[in-house]
Amino acid sequence: MKNFTKLGDVSNIQEWLQQAKEIKKNPFSHKAFGTDKTLGLVFFNPSLRTRMSTQKAAMNLGMNTMVMNISNDGWAIELEDGTVMNEGSQEHIKEAAGVLSQYCDIIGIRTFASLSNQLEDYQEKILSKFIQYALVPVVSLESAIRHPLQSFADLITIEEQKNTARPKVVLSWAPHPKPLPQAVANSFVEWVKETDADLVIANPEGFDLSEEFTEGVFVMHDQDEAFKGADFIYAKNWSSFSAYGKTTEAHNDWIITEKKMALTKNAKFMHCLPVRRNVVVSDEVIDGANSLVLEQANNRTYAAQTVILKFLKNEN
Amino acid sequence: MKNFTKLGDVSNIQEWLQQAKEIKKNPFSHKAFGTDKTLGLVFFNPSLRTRMSTQKAAMNLGMNTMVMNISNDGWAIELEDGTVMNEGSQEHIKEAAGVLSQYCDIIGIRTFASLSNQLEDYQEKILSKFIQYALVPVVSLESAIRHPLQSFADLITIEEQKNTARPKVVLSWAPHPKPLPQAVANSFVEWVKETDADLVIANPEGFDLSEEFTEGVFVMHDQDEAFKGADFIYAKNWSSFSAYGKTTEAHNDWIITEKKMALTKNAKFMHCLPVRRNVVVSDEVIDGANSLVLEQANNRTYAAQTVILKFLKNEN
Amino acid sequence: MKNFTKLGDVSNIQEWLQQAKEIKKNPFSHKAFGTDKTLGLVFFNPSLRTRMSTQKAAMNLGMNTMVMNISNDGWAIELEDGTVMNEGSQEHIKEAAGVLSQYCDIIGIRTFASLSNQLEDYQEKILSKFIQYALVPVVSLESAIRHPLQSFADLITIEEQKNTARPKVVLSWAPHPKPLPQAVANSFVEWVKETDADLVIANPEGFDLSEEFTEGVFVMHDQDEAFKGADFIYAKNWSSFSAYGKTTEAHNDWIITEKKMALTKNAKFMHCLPVRRNVVVSDEVIDGANSLVLEQANNRTYAAQTVILKFLKNEN
Repeated sequence: MKNFTKLGDVSNIQEWLQQAKEIKKNPFSHKAFGTDKTLGLVFFNPSLRTRMSTQKAAMNLGMNTMVMNISNDGWAIELEDGTVMNEGSQEHIKEAAGVLSQYCDIIGIRTFASLSNQLEDYQEKILSKFIQYALVPVVSLESAIRHPLQSFADLITIEEQKNTARPKVVLSWAPHPKPLPQAVANSFVEWVKETDADLVIANPEGFDLSEEFTEGVFVMHDQDEAFKGADFIYAKNWSSFSAYGKTTEAHNDWIITEKKMALTKNAKFMHCLPVRRNVVVSDEVIDGANSLVLEQANNRTYAAQTVILKFLKNEN
Repeated sequence: MKNFTKLGDVSNIQEWLQQAKEIKKNPFSHKAFGTDKTLGLVFFNPSLRTRMSTQKAAMNLGMNTMVMNISNDGWAIELEDGTVMNEGSQEHIKEAAGVLSQYCDIIGIRTFASLSNQLEDYQEKILSKFIQYALVPVVSLESAIRHPLQSFADLITIEEQKNTARPKVVLSWAPHPKPLPQAVANSFVEWVKETDADLVIANPEGFDLSEEFTEGVFVMHDQDEAFKGADFIYAKNWSSFSAYGKTTEAHNDWIITEKKMALTKNAKFMHCLPVRRNVVVSDEVIDGANSLVLEQANNRTYAAQTVILKFLKNEN
Repeated sequence: MKNFTKLGDVSNIQEWLQQAKEIKKNPFSHKAFGTDKTLGLVFFNPSLRTRMSTQKAAMNLGMNTMVMNISNDGWAIELEDGTVMNEGSQEHIKEAAGVLSQYCDIIGIRTFASLSNQLEDYQEKILSKFIQYALVPVVSLESAIRHPLQSFADLITIEEQKNTARPKVVLSWAPHPKPLPQAVANSFVEWVKETDADLVIANPEGFDLSEEFTEGVFVMHDQDEAFKGADFIYAKNWSSFSAYGKTTEAHNDWIITEKKMALTKNAKFMHCLPVRRNVVVSDEVIDGANSLVLEQANNRTYAAQTVILKFLKNEN
């Protein structure tokens, strides 16, 4: 594995899930692998769970960590090749990635979608440039269109919580006051469809995800119908892919409530957080016994730790 | 001890002072207790001493530390229950506290007073909410109305420096260009009045602290009178409690000068820092041989280390 | 060595270069020296390379590190003595330095030139004040007029890369859209002129560096002439010393291009980074086989590690 940015970088997801389970049982059992190794975490965007869980994962493995909030603490980064850099940007991503590679054995990087340039977002422009110029393995801490550490943690959580060999998993669009990236949703689909699950996506018309991700997945525009018989409801807002980055209609009735959860097979509720209460999901649901949001957050550590350990062991 | 937010959380202050003294002599003698443990420090407000002394304390104990400047690096936090979160706030304190608890064995949190809502400040609203939702012990790094690690460090300093079994300790209000919280003053009173000391508070009329703290303590409105015979002068500005959060009159003559210190029994000068020189205290006094400000800052490490060690040992 | 702020603090540069070379071969061989020691890094200004390489150096030596972005995370600092601090500044540098000294065994500090007050900049006012009040050794992470860790790393790089006993080293001014400090240039001259090299400075008229640094060094105003026979071209922009802090004319023709590099003796290209591509240097040159910019960044770690180790060993 050269880098970790998508499911395609995982050789055998079942083996990875097994590894994560063992790490969760004995989180400090691989400290020898991390000795004298450094993980650098580079943030172009805010982060709480990712920042802390990935640091925790590295420390569990005996590594040193260095965190860089590049826009606040460093220099404005140029992404375009060939630019005459006589305006705002102060450092080219080529130097930034090359230099960080001098100090880190593995680099994690977070860079959100612009939501204004679909082509650049779906080419994962910043992440790709960074990887192109980095000299060490790069771990995506959420890119423009994927959030693989979140999806891996979600799979670990489903694996732990499922009561049936092949659960019905519904990814449901939910309302939000601001247009959000499609990364978590895309990534969840990418990972879940490779496991033993009946995956259904429910979203309003006009909010279908990119076919690059939904190919072969059942997409419904009737939320109630989709919820029937579900074992897991994964709620998430995303802005439109077709009217790129827009949320023209609020669809406030897509909020996840107890009434809707009653349509399911006593489904577990999942969300990646942060979540806007009583907009995306009602207090009753997220505070209920079936809510897995903290378990998902907890599993972020073991997902990250599995990925980092694979790099330290030079496996994939 | 479930959390550390006030003197009431300390079972036996004399035993704690003794423990701090031993830790100061051998700061690295308890590293086994901190191995594979993580302290998370969450700042809603600026911090230098608290940030660094608490990190140092944790590192002395062999712990890992993670620092989170929540407003800059994370998400805007919602405090109210039941809110429809469709405006500025992005993450509810319930999730924030719950999630941080997944990654940390102990969490420190700093959150200043609003100075606009007396009731919420004196209920320690943010701290209380955070504790309500946290799943691990919480250490106050200064709340709306108390600064217990500072007060504990101040007691350690008085204990080290006193020349008499029962010193006279004067907490003196001092001028400041901006209205400040009452936290340091409240907390100092809370802690010192439980020790063997004659505690006197000196402040201008209109600046009496809350009776919740001053009950049983001698309050004087004549600074010169109060200073007579003092062994320790602890200077601090605070805004009015009765005209909540206001400083209607400057009272610049309340500055601590050599002339005023000459009224004391060769008293030591104390301040929690940061301090505005020649507003709160004259250069001569803070730079003089009797100034303890750096010793107080130094003892912040051992105060924090004692508290954290108690949690690691599951004592109180 | 009491502090590390300039070449004059180095007893024997050849011995230091030798030490750095050994550290680079075995970066983890001195971890016992750093155990239970803490390096504090204080930034008044942005930093990527310095921040990360110096942390890395400390971790390689087994030390703990604490990073403080003083303007964002702490308090506004007062530099003047005797000020009545009733305006913006919240903490005097005397307390800041004294307090940090309580928590750190060594303190690194970065503070850029104002470019508005030549006298204060050339007195290194902030750094000097900080050192005056610090109680532990201070390492400059770039001051108003010097960048000694950069210069030491540059010397290590030249030492590694030179093909001749006495290389010709040209420090060439290069264009930049904003006026920059003279620190890197001053410091490079200070360090290189003490080694076995033919040092030439090339800059447009009006951009001569301070004679304090250039005394005894050959300064040319014809870039092409200067490049002839060069083994190393070190590019850097700086604003005028005589018309202090100004860049009245752009001199865009001073950009380092392949055509200019062709005048040299197949010279290596050096720059401290961050660099504005196609303004300071053309893509072809910085991306070419003779570019040493990443090696320079890499050697920042070993430069810092050598300095810190000297302090830990109490040598100089």
